[in-house]
Amino acid sequence: MKLASLKHGRDGRLVVVSRDLTRATDAFIVVPTLQQALDDWERYAPALEALAEQLEHGSVPSFRFHEHECASPLPRAYARRHAAAWPGYPALLRQAAGAEAPSGTAGGLRHAASDAFLGPRDPLGPGDPAGSLDLSAGLAAITGDVPQGADAAAAAGAIRLVTLVAEVIRHDRLRPDGLDLDGADAPALAASLAPVAVTPDELGEAWRDGALHRKLQVHRNDKPLGCPEAGADLGSGLVALVAEAARHRSLGAGTIVSAGPVSNRGIDGGPGRPAAEGGAGYACLAEARAAEVLTGGWVRTPYLAAGDRLRIEMKDGGGHSIFGAIEHDVTG
Amino acid sequence: MKLASLKHGRDGRLVVVSRDLTRATDAFIVVPTLQQALDDWERYAPALEALAEQLEHGSVPSFRFHEHECASPLPRAYARRHAAAWPGYPALLRQAAGAEAPSGTAGGLRHAASDAFLGPRDPLGPGDPAGSLDLSAGLAAITGDVPQGADAAAAAGAIRLVTLVAEVIRHDRLRPDGLDLDGADAPALAASLAPVAVTPDELGEAWRDGALHRKLQVHRNDKPLGCPEAGADLGSGLVALVAEAARHRSLGAGTIVSAGPVSNRGIDGGPGRPAAEGGAGYACLAEARAAEVLTGGWVRTPYLAAGDRLRIEMKDGGGHSIFGAIEHDVTG
Repeated sequence: MKLASLKHGRDGRLVVVSRDLTRATDAFIVVPTLQQALDDWERYAPALEALAEQLEHGSVPSFRFHEHECASPLPRAYARRHAAAWPGYPALLRQAAGAEAPSGTAGGLRHAASDAFLGPRDPLGPGDPAGSLDLSAGLAAITGDVPQGADAAAAAGAIRLVTLVAEVIRHDRLRPDGLDLDGADAPALAASLAPVAVTPDELGEAWRDGALHRKLQVHRNDKPLGCPEAGADLGSGLVALVAEAARHRSLGAGTIVSAGPVSNRGIDGGPGRPAAEGGAGYACLAEARAAEVLTGGWVRTPYLAAGDRLRIEMKDGGGHSIFGAIEHDVTG
Repeated sequence: MKLASLKHGRDGRLVVVSRDLTRATDAFIVVPTLQQALDDWERYAPALEALAEQLEHGSVPSFRFHEHECASPLPRAYARRHAAAWPGYPALLRQAAGAEAPSGTAGGLRHAASDAFLGPRDPLGPGDPAGSLDLSAGLAAITGDVPQGADAAAAAGAIRLVTLVAEVIRHDRLRPDGLDLDGADAPALAASLAPVAVTPDELGEAWRDGALHRKLQVHRNDKPLGCPEAGADLGSGLVALVAEAARHRSLGAGTIVSAGPVSNRGIDGGPGRPAAEGGAGYACLAEARAAEVLTGGWVRTPYLAAGDRLRIEMKDGGGHSIFGAIEHDVTG
């Protein structure tokens, strides 16, 4: 089943989307918002699945689905925990900065803002005077209720939906441990989710070993920035992160556990090669820059500026978009 | 106006509470939950204020108000930012640990869990094997929508409600900067709000200069642990914290900005004296212990254990409870 929230009020209007993302049908007759569906999933999911079935068969009224009309599937959520789950990224940034990695820091879950996701096609606002704006692309799980101490099997069973996430980050104020320079949380200026969130069964065999095994395609101004494999070089998959998030306290329905940026190492174990040179490339600009520092000595990739467009997407084995695309224009 | 949420489903059942906390009336005819009221405050607040007026005059059906039937006023919220806004506390802890305070760290806002507040009278669960369980008592503002870059006046105007907060903390895994030992956020195991949240106008002249000027009474097993003045020795008041939280991004309706523990310095500028010796005492056990280390050399105050009860309350000039009491028993 594929679900989306069209822009409407604070919580969106839930729709069921066809597998090929071309058509949608209103879920209002079942439940008006995704949060309400998650709050009582056992009750609503079967009826939503039935709608999805009818949509595929054309036996329910439907309308053309436009990704640009979408809010993030959960326009606001009660909780988000985020981890740099691909250790190559923080390692590379620290190495480029000449800093020592504090032992055991990578992969730690931090609380992250979840009260106002950008829509997946919303503009990014008026650039950044300091010129250090970045977009970090990764994956997100949306959970049901997860009891404290849930094991991997329980965590996997509690993942209701999977989607993509983009975090808008300003790098000028970051310390190597991810904190802001004044010791507060890094000001992730905003974040967005892909237009469509899908139940794990939609992912087929790409959803295995507690992680999603597909390439994440990131384009900047229609040129590939990277296409790293999300199932490779990862420290913890989404299932392990959900279990980790539930280690000290239970998680409520609609919790988002996100991970990013996706980061592949080079074949020599060092920094990944740029996409333009046939490498897997990068899922954020900071990693591209760090790799340039470590391999070439000078930085060619600029941070985001007015006029830039970043596009993030993941395709299935047949080349069809799974979640629709996150696409943010940086305005002047 | 004083508002509370009786335990009911995930979001509680909104009631208007009399000024003396003895009676309540259902707000359902206006709006069923506090989050919904905050989402459209201009529309609902006048009708809720009218109910409060009628409740004081006995001209509306009412029932006896029992604090132990309450959920936290917002049983779950979309965002919480927390700061150690009384700098004496982090300074003392670092001094006692023999650590240097990273410059500028105190007072930084961190994202904190808001998806599942404990009820103000809920038990604290089965103790802590490591024996380092603590309760940190402070203040919280519940905001309406706050635009990015709001100044102090706009931040003050956006504070809809004020209440008390208690954070359940495990100290064994904390680094001096408040992070968990593995670099993730400190596992604040849980948090609760006072039974009743009040509009700032209910606080009279105690609400001035962007802060609440009343003593916070903290009792452990009916003995005073502390009665620090919330209006003294503070780095940032609630209004400044709301403005700071909105510096990089707008805040959505129902955001909780919390601060604690309240901490007063001694008259010599050093650690505050214990309540038992006539001092202001402490609003958490870790500060009592740190003060013992720094003044006496050995620690007499144990962390929370099974059978302990902590009670947190604030009274007005007439000795009446403003918000009702947070009271947690630690179960065996």
